[in-house]
Amino acid sequence: MARGGQSPRFHSTPHTHKSNLRCRAVTIKTIAIISPGDMGSGIGKALVQEGYQVITCSEGRSPLTKELAQKAGFQDTPNLATLLIQADCLFSIVPPESALSVAQNIAGHIQSANPGLLYVDCNAIAPQTTLKIAEIIGGAGARYVDCGIIGSPPERRGLTRIYLSGPDTSEVLELHGQNIDFRNLGDQIGTASALKMCYASQTKGTTALWLHSLVTAQSLGVLDPLRKEWTSSNPTLWGRMEDNIPTVPHRAGRWIGEMKEIALTMEGIGLTNDAFEGAATMYELVDAVFHQKGYSEGPPILEVLSKIEHHLHDHHE
Amino acid sequence: MARGGQSPRFHSTPHTHKSNLRCRAVTIKTIAIISPGDMGSGIGKALVQEGYQVITCSEGRSPLTKELAQKAGFQDTPNLATLLIQADCLFSIVPPESALSVAQNIAGHIQSANPGLLYVDCNAIAPQTTLKIAEIIGGAGARYVDCGIIGSPPERRGLTRIYLSGPDTSEVLELHGQNIDFRNLGDQIGTASALKMCYASQTKGTTALWLHSLVTAQSLGVLDPLRKEWTSSNPTLWGRMEDNIPTVPHRAGRWIGEMKEIALTMEGIGLTNDAFEGAATMYELVDAVFHQKGYSEGPPILEVLSKIEHHLHDHHE
Repeated sequence: MARGGQSPRFHSTPHTHKSNLRCRAVTIKTIAIISPGDMGSGIGKALVQEGYQVITCSEGRSPLTKELAQKAGFQDTPNLATLLIQADCLFSIVPPESALSVAQNIAGHIQSANPGLLYVDCNAIAPQTTLKIAEIIGGAGARYVDCGIIGSPPERRGLTRIYLSGPDTSEVLELHGQNIDFRNLGDQIGTASALKMCYASQTKGTTALWLHSLVTAQSLGVLDPLRKEWTSSNPTLWGRMEDNIPTVPHRAGRWIGEMKEIALTMEGIGLTNDAFEGAATMYELVDAVFHQKGYSEGPPILEVLSKIEHHLHDHHE
Repeated sequence: MARGGQSPRFHSTPHTHKSNLRCRAVTIKTIAIISPGDMGSGIGKALVQEGYQVITCSEGRSPLTKELAQKAGFQDTPNLATLLIQADCLFSIVPPESALSVAQNIAGHIQSANPGLLYVDCNAIAPQTTLKIAEIIGGAGARYVDCGIIGSPPERRGLTRIYLSGPDTSEVLELHGQNIDFRNLGDQIGTASALKMCYASQTKGTTALWLHSLVTAQSLGVLDPLRKEWTSSNPTLWGRMEDNIPTVPHRAGRWIGEMKEIALTMEGIGLTNDAFEGAATMYELVDAVFHQKGYSEGPPILEVLSKIEHHLHDHHE
């Protein structure tokens, strides 16, 4: 493949019987969302508001997920096969570590339920992972769109960008969702995931790095002089940390898989995966400290650091 | 040891025959500096300007180091033994990976040359490393001060803080150096190094993280959409990267050892060392790419990224 930054370093698009599939292109009316968590229900709601039928299958889901789906105006279907039969298009919005198994499960139903399905994988996964899923979905006879969501749920204008790439993005690009900005990243599967990985590596990577510095300073008794140093050399830093760190305990568990996907992305281009395996380990630690304690509110930064320090003290050596 | 953030988690101060040594306390008049690189010559010059005699031993040093020492107003001594005989106090300011061997070399001369020497280790090393060096220097009969330099050479006011810790800091705290702010971090060896490690983990760790994100984006062809994303979500980020990244090729080689010392520091409190082993690997890569090319000027950010990408492409798989 071409070198020098213009063309992404992805392998060829998996076989998807393009000529066959292209003629199946339809205007999307019914969208299945798996699963309606925070982001999935937010995006679904925005699509409902624009007149689309949004469906899900709450079979076996938690009461919270069912409630989110209902509030967002989703129609429920009794099982996965019915969901697939009714859907023009399916958005997979799940934790990164579930993206592959969700796709495998759906692929098993595609031939019987809906070979015309357009499968949009919106997960925070490495280009290598999205290519693997594209093979599975393509192998089952359906079309695949690589997608990366950047921002938060579309509660107001400007928060949510949905990046799309691959040979079959055109119908998805025609969707309208309130406050959602659909963007085209070209015809290669992998590009949308690559953008998501790079973006998240900076945001969630910075948070992990801050935790490394802060927890070390706390444990070694130098947090106060460190903060004083920052007051002169980087005056906004502590304030940003104060805003950001309390949000981590409730999200750390969901970020572990994403950090591992970033590590895989970087390994794929020949960089070390150490930096983001380290970030994953940090979020595992935070999750272990707070998940067990059943916190429901974001604790202040000093409490976060002190709890992590005590945990390390109890578990180290 | 005490827990909960007030007292640092260091082991007891090494044996240094305190009662013996304390009575040797003198007002420092002559300061030896090993070695007068950028930081060492800058600090020495500031001390010369305040009337101290600053000495070094340029035996076996590079012509550049000799020139820096001469310009800074240092007196040269013919050999290490003479340097130690004349010095009240010695500042070790060397690459972190040399800190231990420099100390071992000097320790071999202390008994015969100057058991009253005050050894100030100013290097970017882990608390564990500074404690090891304190054992060596203390074992040779001299006193030891843990020191961490934060900032750049003292070319103007406000740039340079010299943090000191340990039981024998008082004489060093009485020094005056133009534009140098000497600060006391208490009586435990390890605290000054801990602060330096935590501070550098945020600054140089951020740069390594940026390189991870940017090189990945460059290699996967998504640097342009990533920059556009940042324009809205983090408008100052790209500008900071543009200023910072071109300075890395010439400094990356010097930062490898420092990242490894940070990794050791974090391992010491029970965190993973992966994150900063990853940062060390990134700086090894940057050093390999640019060192070989003999660059003498900071190349623009896009050239840095493109050169690293080509190197990865040529060396990967």
